[in-house]
Amino acid sequence: MANRYPLPDLNSLPEDIRTRILQVQEKAGFVPNVFLGLARRPAEWRAFFAYHDALMEPESAGRSSGLSKGDREMIVTTTSSANQCLYCVVAHGAILRIYEKKPLLADQVAVNYRKADISPRQRAMLDFAMKVCQRSQDIEEADFQALQAQGFDDEDIWDIAAITAFFGLSNRMASFSGMLPNPEFYLMGRIPRDKPARA
Amino acid sequence: MANRYPLPDLNSLPEDIRTRILQVQEKAGFVPNVFLGLARRPAEWRAFFAYHDALMEPESAGRSSGLSKGDREMIVTTTSSANQCLYCVVAHGAILRIYEKKPLLADQVAVNYRKADISPRQRAMLDFAMKVCQRSQDIEEADFQALQAQGFDDEDIWDIAAITAFFGLSNRMASFSGMLPNPEFYLMGRIPRDKPARA
Amino acid sequence: MANRYPLPDLNSLPEDIRTRILQVQEKAGFVPNVFLGLARRPAEWRAFFAYHDALMEPESAGRSSGLSKGDREMIVTTTSSANQCLYCVVAHGAILRIYEKKPLLADQVAVNYRKADISPRQRAMLDFAMKVCQRSQDIEEADFQALQAQGFDDEDIWDIAAITAFFGLSNRMASFSGMLPNPEFYLMGRIPRDKPARA
Amino acid sequence: MANRYPLPDLNSLPEDIRTRILQVQEKAGFVPNVFLGLARRPAEWRAFFAYHDALMEPESAGRSSGLSKGDREMIVTTTSSANQCLYCVVAHGAILRIYEKKPLLADQVAVNYRKADISPRQRAMLDFAMKVCQRSQDIEEADFQALQAQGFDDEDIWDIAAITAFFGLSNRMASFSGMLPNPEFYLMGRIPRDKPARA
Amino acid sequence: MANRYPLPDLNSLPEDIRTRILQVQEKAGFVPNVFLGLARRPAEWRAFFAYHDALMEPESAGRSSGLSKGDREMIVTTTSSANQCLYCVVAHGAILRIYEKKPLLADQVAVNYRKADISPRQRAMLDFAMKVCQRSQDIEEADFQALQAQGFDDEDIWDIAAITAFFGLSNRMASFSGMLPNPEFYLMGRIPRDKPARA
Amino acid sequence: MANRYPLPDLNSLPEDIRTRILQVQEKAGFVPNVFLGLARRPAEWRAFFAYHDALMEPESAGRSSGLSKGDREMIVTTTSSANQCLYCVVAHGAILRIYEKKPLLADQVAVNYRKADISPRQRAMLDFAMKVCQRSQDIEEADFQALQAQGFDDEDIWDIAAITAFFGLSNRMASFSGMLPNPEFYLMGRIPRDKPARA
Repeated sequence: MANRYPLPDLNSLPEDIRTRILQVQEKAGFVPNVFLGLARRPAEWRAFFAYHDALMEPESAGRSSGLSKGDREMIVTTTSSANQCLYCVVAHGAILRIYEKKPLLADQVAVNYRKADISPRQRAMLDFAMKVCQRSQDIEEADFQALQAQGFDDEDIWDIAAITAFFGLSNRMASFSGMLPNPEFYLMGRIPRDKPARA
Repeated sequence: MANRYPLPDLNSLPEDIRTRILQVQEKAGFVPNVFLGLARRPAEWRAFFAYHDALMEPESAGRSSGLSKGDREMIVTTTSSANQCLYCVVAHGAILRIYEKKPLLADQVAVNYRKADISPRQRAMLDFAMKVCQRSQDIEEADFQALQAQGFDDEDIWDIAAITAFFGLSNRMASFSGMLPNPEFYLMGRIPRDKPARA
Repeated sequence: MANRYPLPDLNSLPEDIRTRILQVQEKAGFVPNVFLGLARRPAEWRAFFAYHDALMEPESAGRSSGLSKGDREMIVTTTSSANQCLYCVVAHGAILRIYEKKPLLADQVAVNYRKADISPRQRAMLDFAMKVCQRSQDIEEADFQALQAQGFDDEDIWDIAAITAFFGLSNRMASFSGMLPNPEFYLMGRIPRDKPARA
Repeated sequence: MANRYPLPDLNSLPEDIRTRILQVQEKAGFVPNVFLGLARRPAEWRAFFAYHDALMEPESAGRSSGLSKGDREMIVTTTSSANQCLYCVVAHGAILRIYEKKPLLADQVAVNYRKADISPRQRAMLDFAMKVCQRSQDIEEADFQALQAQGFDDEDIWDIAAITAFFGLSNRMASFSGMLPNPEFYLMGRIPRDKPARA
Repeated sequence: MANRYPLPDLNSLPEDIRTRILQVQEKAGFVPNVFLGLARRPAEWRAFFAYHDALMEPESAGRSSGLSKGDREMIVTTTSSANQCLYCVVAHGAILRIYEKKPLLADQVAVNYRKADISPRQRAMLDFAMKVCQRSQDIEEADFQALQAQGFDDEDIWDIAAITAFFGLSNRMASFSGMLPNPEFYLMGRIPRDKPARA
Repeated sequence: MANRYPLPDLNSLPEDIRTRILQVQEKAGFVPNVFLGLARRPAEWRAFFAYHDALMEPESAGRSSGLSKGDREMIVTTTSSANQCLYCVVAHGAILRIYEKKPLLADQVAVNYRKADISPRQRAMLDFAMKVCQRSQDIEEADFQALQAQGFDDEDIWDIAAITAFFGLSNRMASFSGMLPNPEFYLMGRIPRDKPARA
């Protein structure tokens, strides 16, 4: 099940896209497939990553968020698993392990978030995210109240919903086009590094 | 069930957003609620409409598309109904009626697209869109072949999938936040104007 | 997707059926397709409309009902949409708009009744109707209590259930046989007439 | 879970209803609960049994049918089980056993009709009935062709659909109101009587 | 739909299996098909019946149980019906009738256990069993509390879950292999014997 | 979500169970939680592991199987993910990685087996396993033919079904009782060892 749409050559891409991809490669050591998989359509690529950054790096948009980086990746991993999106579960599961420094957490939320080693606040967050993912038409005031009881405010709730909705888009694009996770993601964050690399 | 998040004042919005909204108002005669409903987060707003334009106005991205304007709105109306999104069914149903010049079509695809007055090519398009909407994890080569048999190429298929995925995001944002369609949309395109208003 | 079963000629129908159809035509200005679509089987036609009248025009059966005409049509439109019955959503949506004098209401309940501009009493009524429509085997005492808390008595509850059940029959007959709504229904009740036609 | 609505006294019922009930009692040896359970609303009662007779006793409507009495009861038992209607599965399962002279058949179709001792023609009939019962919105030409390949004509297909639709109404009325099958039904037709009672 | 895998000859079976089967035949008057249907794989047969006995005859494992024999068969009949397993519903329904001395009970729980003539304690037991059967991933502390409120302790709850899980295995084996219930089961326990056979 | 039932002390267990557990510990370096989690009920424990061994180590039952060790673990990992069983996905995913020497495979089949790097033969095997897992009542001759077309014989098909059915039992026991995978499983088999540890 390889990618159905051929990946573009990096050098053929518009300058801004190429620059961003090279930055990511520099930082991660490889180019995550989503960057090339969507790049054949530059306008959509730019909108996708602008949306991504606005939600996943709120400080880049001049916002702070009540959700931690780990919270955000946990929402992505959990709801992407509900959508059975291989790319997003593996790639964002890797990032979740790194941010939360919990090597087991991504597999737990991917299989059954109700069994995961998370706080009651995170459980409420994921319950809401799953409802946005699967039955957004049924959301009602009581769903907001359950989150407020855990200390989330309306901006946090917007974040949970928007991250879920955005990755629902991402899940569908990846699944439909046969986008596969880079092999590097599978192992990332699984081996704890309690000690500095140099001693 | 009014909008849960207060709408921002038009004058408080960043210049680029305000300008676009005023243009839309000029053209449509009113401001569709999605423009104000998402504007409280300017970075997300810009990404949302950039994505929207890239998919729904491909010529703005320097692309042509094998899907007509009517095809695109038909995908939106049909899949938004599957997601029970009141805003998108009513607003895009209105645009669908106008583009296709078929006053009955939007209600047909919203209730049961299998009974709608559409071509076999459009039926295949909507079957694929519904699968992306509801079971994207199951898409396989046979789904592509069914579309190719109706004359769609791989770029057209990307369009069908991407429009469905993007409005799946839009549906979830609208439903979760209580966004309601402007009353103007309900009647738009329902009264055929066969003759020029003045002659 | 035209009607799969040919419509009988009006003049070939038994006297009682022809008379009723002519009365309806006189009043509505056209013959709603359900009248001809079912007429090929006179005994079933008579039973269908006798049942219809007993539930939808209770005064014809010497009963009064705690449900208004608008309440009844709202139940039909909402549950017919859950069954994706094009004929009933369009035809009864039209009647709902007229009775309730709310041009937007039918589209709202058809897409997502939880977002519609209705009273808490009507919301409880539709919650129950949807349960009868989709999971009648699960109905229990608590469902009755939720309705009683909104002022419905046991006769009203019978009305809600029976209307839902009867139109579940109607939905299946219309969908299976390819019955389509008359074009006239789509626009009926959408243009408010606040003032008398003549002044 | 007794009947939620009190059963009317036989003597308080209108003459026509009372007469019919006494005839049934004479023939069956007891009054099936559906006759009293619906009798509190005479107009609905009359429409219900007129519809019932038109479908289940077509000769009473001057029609013959390509479905045998056993076929018809098999449709009722199978689809009523899908709707988890205790009254109809038990009562019509009894009649099915009697008509088909197969003491095991009703339990088979109620649990899993795919495992029942029936003909390929009956299997096709039940596949269609189940689709009308559960997904009538999806019925299409191919469903008709599958039945035609087994020798059913369009009138037979109407019968299958109408019987399913009518008992879907009956199932919902029985389940919602707590109607329970008479104890007599459970054993009826289970003990084969190969020999005349008197010899 | 006969058994897809040929049944082994009784005389070809290992001694221990043959002995057990002959004992069952002696007691029941016939060999229930599950005994021969699984015997083609002796190691699996032995494990299956060891598990069966450990759960269904706890005294054989030196345990007592808070569930009666009737409770256990009621769990089997109800959850096997949810899995549409013809063999288990018919065979264990027969045993349920005998243990509970209620000729109507098995049909009631098979069609809709919410309508069955059972105690609130048994209703809670079946609610839990159905959740283990259909959504075991969702079980949480509140489910245990609902059972404790009816007097079940943690060992009883283990019994409910384990019986449901074991017969979920049995249901799948029977359905996949086309195992059919012996005709004898259908009538067993339906005719009450209030008086001793001899007087 | 720790284990709801306290784990027994190893020394309190019957000799045969203790011996087996010590052997496993010797080989694996730790005691997988399922061994202690079920040991509080020795008779059930013995039946469970006898069944497990008969299916997963057929040579122990004097059988050979057309399924490889990797095939068997792939069935377990895939269907356990459909049942959202954290213990089985993580523990058997580890074993799958080791047997197949494919560090990425377990995550692939757990998220979406249709996207996994497997052969058409394995894809057919998993399609059948998923049907046994989720809709065993619908299995029919065509399902067997699809497997035969890939070279599976009836004994292989029994293996696929029985492994799926047995782990459906295991999944329900693990989920209901809160059994969690040992931390050791999460990393096992993820780091390829192409070269001998010593050279």
